[in-house]
Amino acid sequence: MVDKDSAFPLIDKLVVVGMGLIGGSVAVGLKNRGACREVVAVVQTETSGKEAIATGIADRFSLSLESLAPELGAQDIIFIAVPTLAVQQVLADVQRWVAEDVTVTDAASVKGNVVAAAREVFGQVPSQLVPGHPIAGSEKSGIKAANPDLYQGYRVILTPLTETGASHLQRVTKLWQTLGAEVLFMSVAEHDEVLGATSHLPHAIAYALVDTLAHDIGNPNIFRYAAGGFRDFTRIASSDPLMWHDIMCANRDAVVQALDQFIDNLSRMQAAIAAADGDYLLEVFSRAKKARDHFTQVLAQQTASQ
Amino acid sequence: MVDKDSAFPLIDKLVVVGMGLIGGSVAVGLKNRGACREVVAVVQTETSGKEAIATGIADRFSLSLESLAPELGAQDIIFIAVPTLAVQQVLADVQRWVAEDVTVTDAASVKGNVVAAAREVFGQVPSQLVPGHPIAGSEKSGIKAANPDLYQGYRVILTPLTETGASHLQRVTKLWQTLGAEVLFMSVAEHDEVLGATSHLPHAIAYALVDTLAHDIGNPNIFRYAAGGFRDFTRIASSDPLMWHDIMCANRDAVVQALDQFIDNLSRMQAAIAAADGDYLLEVFSRAKKARDHFTQVLAQQTASQ
Repeated sequence: MVDKDSAFPLIDKLVVVGMGLIGGSVAVGLKNRGACREVVAVVQTETSGKEAIATGIADRFSLSLESLAPELGAQDIIFIAVPTLAVQQVLADVQRWVAEDVTVTDAASVKGNVVAAAREVFGQVPSQLVPGHPIAGSEKSGIKAANPDLYQGYRVILTPLTETGASHLQRVTKLWQTLGAEVLFMSVAEHDEVLGATSHLPHAIAYALVDTLAHDIGNPNIFRYAAGGFRDFTRIASSDPLMWHDIMCANRDAVVQALDQFIDNLSRMQAAIAAADGDYLLEVFSRAKKARDHFTQVLAQQTASQ
Repeated sequence: MVDKDSAFPLIDKLVVVGMGLIGGSVAVGLKNRGACREVVAVVQTETSGKEAIATGIADRFSLSLESLAPELGAQDIIFIAVPTLAVQQVLADVQRWVAEDVTVTDAASVKGNVVAAAREVFGQVPSQLVPGHPIAGSEKSGIKAANPDLYQGYRVILTPLTETGASHLQRVTKLWQTLGAEVLFMSVAEHDEVLGATSHLPHAIAYALVDTLAHDIGNPNIFRYAAGGFRDFTRIASSDPLMWHDIMCANRDAVVQALDQFIDNLSRMQAAIAAADGDYLLEVFSRAKKARDHFTQVLAQQTASQ
């Protein structure tokens, strides 16, 4: 059995369920670093499987976990990188076909629903499951965008439960550290609240803003005069709609609550603009600038310490 | 008299009222290109004046337009680059002290209130005034951030009125073209509507979002786990609070209306998330992604044609 002190390869077979940007980047990153012997893609169609092999990222592919499961053991890792709402179906396959000593982890952006799905499928969260979420990504998607250094210098949040096995947690931690990521641990609830506010809320806002301009405001030239600030501000509205549909639904309560707070705040700002309440505007703008400048410093320190 | 066909210098004295990022970049850009003979800064304090000279951007400074006005004529340009709500006071000085043949232009982000201020001060918009707005800038501010190429490849919108003199309009157009900008013409109302939607609205949103996270959500670590997407999305919240206070107040009606549409749209999205209305979310996200991707192409074409 491979443990954290063994020489490479860390992993014998890396089974990636869902070969897109996230899973593809993990696979090619581990492979390039000599940390796994073989990459097996579990995909839904022959076409996707052949594409995964053509990119050089996967060594072979399978159309089901069922057919692959008999050869998997404690030396292997199943990495689930399907859209958030599709994780439950993969967990059902794991429960039905995969041995209990195979480490299973995921990269879904919401953790509460993954844990709830595991409880529903297994009765309780199995010790082999390590819920995880890399805080990196791109508005790009698909295996062609895969990048072995996507996680270098970025953070990965793991949300282990009391049921999570220590050896499985160690292996998944090591997997991410091998890719150059900093691994942090957090409770499921805090993860979903923090990400709801700092990631899911901004995506909802960016989609709504671009849609307001493109769809609701009747000026066909509205984008012609937009500048660089607008480009940066709306870049995340180019993200994958299906992925974000899943995230919003999976983290519904936290996103709805964050939207409540934001809409309240923005409505107060609107009222202040309408009433020409300059004191209110200056106070909010100054406080926000201070917070944003502080965030810039924190990010710069993180980058400098990498 | 200097006209558009004359050899350089295009301008004899460039008088910059308000020596910050915008005015400083115009001055150093024209000077570096040999397009003006002398830069005179009109500032409020000796300290600012000495700083403007120390940077090498201004040749001399004056603490009032009044003392400078007697030496100004048709070969000179007054460039007003003070915060939006301070433009009216400068126009009052122009009306009182400056000859009618001196070209006057401004760089305020809102044009309706500048034109209204001119009407109030002069009784009607004087032919010497060319309202303008460069669609470039930065979350930085101050003369130390001045950059001779700030406008290279960017757009400048001029909103001339029927009262605007053709020779003044030509000189200001040439000024911006000399700096490498593309000059576009638009009505005052369209300018304020378009910028309200593509610039002022996003700034209001960014300030409100950062303030919501920093002030209303009770998690002191909320920024620790934010990633690059959040950084891009909130960069504009580091913009100068006083400048944006002025812009929001000056373009009140357009900003309040754009906020109405955006808050409506975002509230519908919130309701769809709460109701798990996946069809609605997918439709809006897909439509927004398509619009944003189209915008990326338009921007790329503009960059390519520069």
